[in-house]
Amino acid sequence: MERVYNFSAGPSVMPEAVLKTAAADMLNYKGSGMSVMEMSHRSKVFIEIADNTAATLREIMNIPANYKILFLQGGASLQFAMIPMNLLTAKKKIDLLDTGHWSAAALKEAKRFAAVNVVASSKDTTYDHIPALDPSKFDPDADYFHITSNNTIYGTRMTDNWPNVGNVPLVCDMSSNILSEVYDISKFGLIYAGAQKNMGPAGLTVVIIREDLLERTPEDIPTMMKYTTHVAADSMYNTPPTYGIYLAGLVFQWIKDLGGVAAVQKMNEEKAQILYDAIDNSAMFKGTVAKKDRSLMNIPFITGSEELDNKFVKEAEKAGMVNLKGYRTVGGMRASMYNALPIEGAKALVDFMKKFEVENK
Amino acid sequence: MERVYNFSAGPSVMPEAVLKTAAADMLNYKGSGMSVMEMSHRSKVFIEIADNTAATLREIMNIPANYKILFLQGGASLQFAMIPMNLLTAKKKIDLLDTGHWSAAALKEAKRFAAVNVVASSKDTTYDHIPALDPSKFDPDADYFHITSNNTIYGTRMTDNWPNVGNVPLVCDMSSNILSEVYDISKFGLIYAGAQKNMGPAGLTVVIIREDLLERTPEDIPTMMKYTTHVAADSMYNTPPTYGIYLAGLVFQWIKDLGGVAAVQKMNEEKAQILYDAIDNSAMFKGTVAKKDRSLMNIPFITGSEELDNKFVKEAEKAGMVNLKGYRTVGGMRASMYNALPIEGAKALVDFMKKFEVENK
Repeated sequence: MERVYNFSAGPSVMPEAVLKTAAADMLNYKGSGMSVMEMSHRSKVFIEIADNTAATLREIMNIPANYKILFLQGGASLQFAMIPMNLLTAKKKIDLLDTGHWSAAALKEAKRFAAVNVVASSKDTTYDHIPALDPSKFDPDADYFHITSNNTIYGTRMTDNWPNVGNVPLVCDMSSNILSEVYDISKFGLIYAGAQKNMGPAGLTVVIIREDLLERTPEDIPTMMKYTTHVAADSMYNTPPTYGIYLAGLVFQWIKDLGGVAAVQKMNEEKAQILYDAIDNSAMFKGTVAKKDRSLMNIPFITGSEELDNKFVKEAEKAGMVNLKGYRTVGGMRASMYNALPIEGAKALVDFMKKFEVENK
Repeated sequence: MERVYNFSAGPSVMPEAVLKTAAADMLNYKGSGMSVMEMSHRSKVFIEIADNTAATLREIMNIPANYKILFLQGGASLQFAMIPMNLLTAKKKIDLLDTGHWSAAALKEAKRFAAVNVVASSKDTTYDHIPALDPSKFDPDADYFHITSNNTIYGTRMTDNWPNVGNVPLVCDMSSNILSEVYDISKFGLIYAGAQKNMGPAGLTVVIIREDLLERTPEDIPTMMKYTTHVAADSMYNTPPTYGIYLAGLVFQWIKDLGGVAAVQKMNEEKAQILYDAIDNSAMFKGTVAKKDRSLMNIPFITGSEELDNKFVKEAEKAGMVNLKGYRTVGGMRASMYNALPIEGAKALVDFMKKFEVENK
């Protein structure tokens, strides 16, 4: 059997070229006589891999010198606790924009530590849009302002409509669209993302933090929960997820070789347009979110009939297009088209949708 | 260049057969059309992988039914905090046996949370033995008793000399010798281990916990730090380190196919004996620890001359035996010979030692 088009929301498709390199390197990385996963994290050969991974990420995301890049573990879910534990001051106040499942999860965890002011929410309409922001509801005294730049489950995104937070640090969960578009990193105080969508295998978490925020880390939290611990040790306080760092490095280099994030963004826009056009021109398929807020990464669509949705997912799978079932709160289908999904995947899906529509009129 | 004999203390050598399977599976796992690292952790195919990994571990370690197996992240270092956060009661008292670098690290972190009674320590003699235990120094009222079963840096181990702790749960850091010998799991309340020595790649942490201890987890700690969170979700509260779980599963199966942990223990005893005999019969090389406490996994030895030690490490590397440099506090050499190091590696090292001794008399 050949490789499928994998529309999984995460963990998700990786660049085939990266997987081929990983397979070729598996028993003997560049004449080292061992696999990357067998290397001491303190060895010269691995430190070079880790340094290159960080340097390439800094280059392709254009991360300013006053930001640190950390390779951590535990996913966004652990960050939901680490962020308040590190960034809260005596004020203990957080502003948060509630745009979906993961915003709500961040909110729930943040409430353990602080008073959270939900500046806006689209929960009442099943998170089908990014709510308009009323800056008068922002707390200028908040310790930080938390947003989720892309909502994996609901298929909405923020792009140039970042809230104008003044001096309050903007903290962004970029798990599902990091590296998919060009961002101005200087607008953010802290960016975090699980690797398993656009960067590499699950088990690696990237945190990008503006240096001045490190002064906030209190002494009395667990050593492993302190950003300062990991900054001081260059992400090697303890053994990092070495193989994930190596694979992320290959993915970052793959992006660089494609022409960088701007080039990848163009490809993503093209892929998304193909699918959104098919949805908008169909009598059978409908999108579920406000057009202005449509995600480039996760595209939910429905037929309106659960039976037809199920039939679609089943037949698409037989045709080599997998993981198209939508999340239960939205229903229908969801096509996640991360950086590594080739444009042929989007085209094949659209061809299949057209055929399915004709056959099931 | 061929594969080397890798004596790294961790991350460390993996079974070559496992790496070959991983390379062969890389682009298309068993006809799924994708790599294991591209699979949704909620997919049927991945859940089968995770379930098999846990079931095989339960089988080869003979883990009783009243123990839960968790696949976590963050390494032993995160456990140093999670264990007290979950297991302390209102008493807030811990007994701890200080046998090396990692015991001391566990002690340092535990002190953030509780009064820690160090029942014995071999720190004064650079941790060159497992200290004798005086049960009158044990606190029968402690919330748990913490030990480190193998001391990676110093090369000592406990094996059948577990402290007689009565009803106090015995908590054991088994990072560097899990699966190297047969243990009676029922003696322990909690066992934890980073994967990167005897189980798989770095970034996966295995916790084996007796069910009754789960009742101690307090409500007010971060969600991701609660064992109960991960037990309730079968280690899938958030995306687990899927590729690490897959590789660990291959390693567990490899152990099972070799005849189980008892068979592997025999091989480890044989490998260690080869090296210890060479040390004991040499006029140049000396061991650094008490014979009764010698580790099967990590074997430090010295010549007494720093110059000669360095020469040895350098020439061994040229001969294809790498990562033999000892830890700075011990000096000299350290040969880590985990399960996956073939016996040929031990033999090659000993041959090289004999040759080196003749040439450098």
